[in-house]
Amino acid sequence: MLVSEFDIISHYFDRQSNNRSDVNIGIGDDCALMTVPNHYQLAISTDTFVSGIHFLPEISPDDFACKSLLSSLSDLAAIGADPAWISLAITLPYIDNKWLKSFSDSFFNKLNYYKIQLIGGDTTRGPMSVTYTVYGFVPYGQALLRSGACVGDWIYVTGTLGDSAAGLAILQDKLKVKNNLHKKILINRHLRPKPRFLQGKILRNFASSAIDISDGLVSDLKHILKASCCGAYIKIDNLPQSEALKQSTTTEQNHLLSLSGGEDYELCFTVSEINLKILEPILLNTGLNFTRIGQIKKQSYGIRYYFNNKEINLDIKGFDHFISYL
Amino acid sequence: MLVSEFDIISHYFDRQSNNRSDVNIGIGDDCALMTVPNHYQLAISTDTFVSGIHFLPEISPDDFACKSLLSSLSDLAAIGADPAWISLAITLPYIDNKWLKSFSDSFFNKLNYYKIQLIGGDTTRGPMSVTYTVYGFVPYGQALLRSGACVGDWIYVTGTLGDSAAGLAILQDKLKVKNNLHKKILINRHLRPKPRFLQGKILRNFASSAIDISDGLVSDLKHILKASCCGAYIKIDNLPQSEALKQSTTTEQNHLLSLSGGEDYELCFTVSEINLKILEPILLNTGLNFTRIGQIKKQSYGIRYYFNNKEINLDIKGFDHFISYL
Repeated sequence: MLVSEFDIISHYFDRQSNNRSDVNIGIGDDCALMTVPNHYQLAISTDTFVSGIHFLPEISPDDFACKSLLSSLSDLAAIGADPAWISLAITLPYIDNKWLKSFSDSFFNKLNYYKIQLIGGDTTRGPMSVTYTVYGFVPYGQALLRSGACVGDWIYVTGTLGDSAAGLAILQDKLKVKNNLHKKILINRHLRPKPRFLQGKILRNFASSAIDISDGLVSDLKHILKASCCGAYIKIDNLPQSEALKQSTTTEQNHLLSLSGGEDYELCFTVSEINLKILEPILLNTGLNFTRIGQIKKQSYGIRYYFNNKEINLDIKGFDHFISYL
Repeated sequence: MLVSEFDIISHYFDRQSNNRSDVNIGIGDDCALMTVPNHYQLAISTDTFVSGIHFLPEISPDDFACKSLLSSLSDLAAIGADPAWISLAITLPYIDNKWLKSFSDSFFNKLNYYKIQLIGGDTTRGPMSVTYTVYGFVPYGQALLRSGACVGDWIYVTGTLGDSAAGLAILQDKLKVKNNLHKKILINRHLRPKPRFLQGKILRNFASSAIDISDGLVSDLKHILKASCCGAYIKIDNLPQSEALKQSTTTEQNHLLSLSGGEDYELCFTVSEINLKILEPILLNTGLNFTRIGQIKKQSYGIRYYFNNKEINLDIKGFDHFISYL
């Protein structure tokens, strides 16, 4: 039986997932020692996941590992970075070897896929939570920021919106879906987000701003608008939706899910008319659809919604763990 | 009243603590964007602190901020790095504005002192805990590793040992100290560790290995011995002790505290005879004492303890949150 912190680390987490040449010292000393290649900036993002807050308490260790890791990595994709390393701080109420084996197997499986190396972390006792810090490289000055949108730029999103929130609703028994394939697709979109690394990398050279959709389209687009001092309109008719979502919900439901449902981890980005012509054929080659959903306007315009070419009133809020509690 | 995650970040944590030129984008985008200077390695370390496990639940937010932050930074000192940045993941059960103000004031006060910039993090709801990832720079190839000790090297420690554990015992009402000054000194050593940045920086060029004493001298020295494939002896008579500790405990108590008491955050390092002559006068100038406590031997020698030039039997274990629980 494993009983100490050092046992847990050596047994489950001290695996040579990838032997990257930029990791000079990995797990096992007071610090990891890393080399960042010349002419690159280091992108860093931190995310915490608490059992029962960010996840249904009954989630499997496999799903927990995949969903938390993939959604953390999405921040790197959103800024146009290539993923490189990760630190893992894991807090557990007790040692459950079966749980740890399943969690760590899934965790390293994904790290191997993305060629990411675990460089360190901490293992502590306490209420269950996981904090990742993820690291990636982006060529100097080419990062996709929230602050670059300009009046007249078109607003795009990758993939489809609202699936993850529908998947969560199914898991919570708030949405009934008879078609088993649709049900599986929607739940899978919730539990296995796909960081859009390829799209982020392509957008580096063409998009004026970008963000990943974690809190919901409107909530995240507002971050772009605030950082870029702009307004915008969204054409609700244009929101890209999967067949699974459309067949499983009413029009009102799926519009709301696409506007405010979180955790799709698609990219929302803005692009000027002039860059669009070069970008479109390149993006088409990635095999993932991308859809124009609106346009950037002056700040005084605020945010407006159109449906059938008519403006409609909506009050959309994103998800906030504190607000939902108070 | 502050109600959202974004409110907490903008009100308490989005302060320009230091405007470092190597922080290209700090808080407020999907990732922070950083520049690591040429010819330097980036040192990274992660530590989690859980209320009630790493800290007495009644600890003040000021003490919580200082102790957790300073002990995290100690890992950078131990590897010989200059501190640069920090990420903060904070999980809180509810929004307590008074607590947040005191915590964040102390946190930024220390960051300012060490010229460290907060570059991002996460704010979530859940059982209280804090995870820091700290970052520092070390000239390429000069980091102090655990793995460099050689047979014949002398073993040294900075400062005095056992004070922090005695301070904790006082706070837990397990140790009674009548002398108020001594009591204050010992508690302060527990709540306000000092990362030994200056000493770490000096040792870069001379020490063969180093570690910071977080789990207790013996426990941490064993990490050096394991990584360096060596054995060692310790002369218990030589362990450096403060007057406050000596006056407050029996000889047996203070020897045990100095050998196994954690959280002094002094450096334990090894140095060859030849480097010692250059190192000694430089270290003397730092104003902090350093003491020879033993010597590195072959791995087959194991670890042995001497008192009055006689070998004695001791079974010393360091502190482990999981062992203490099971």
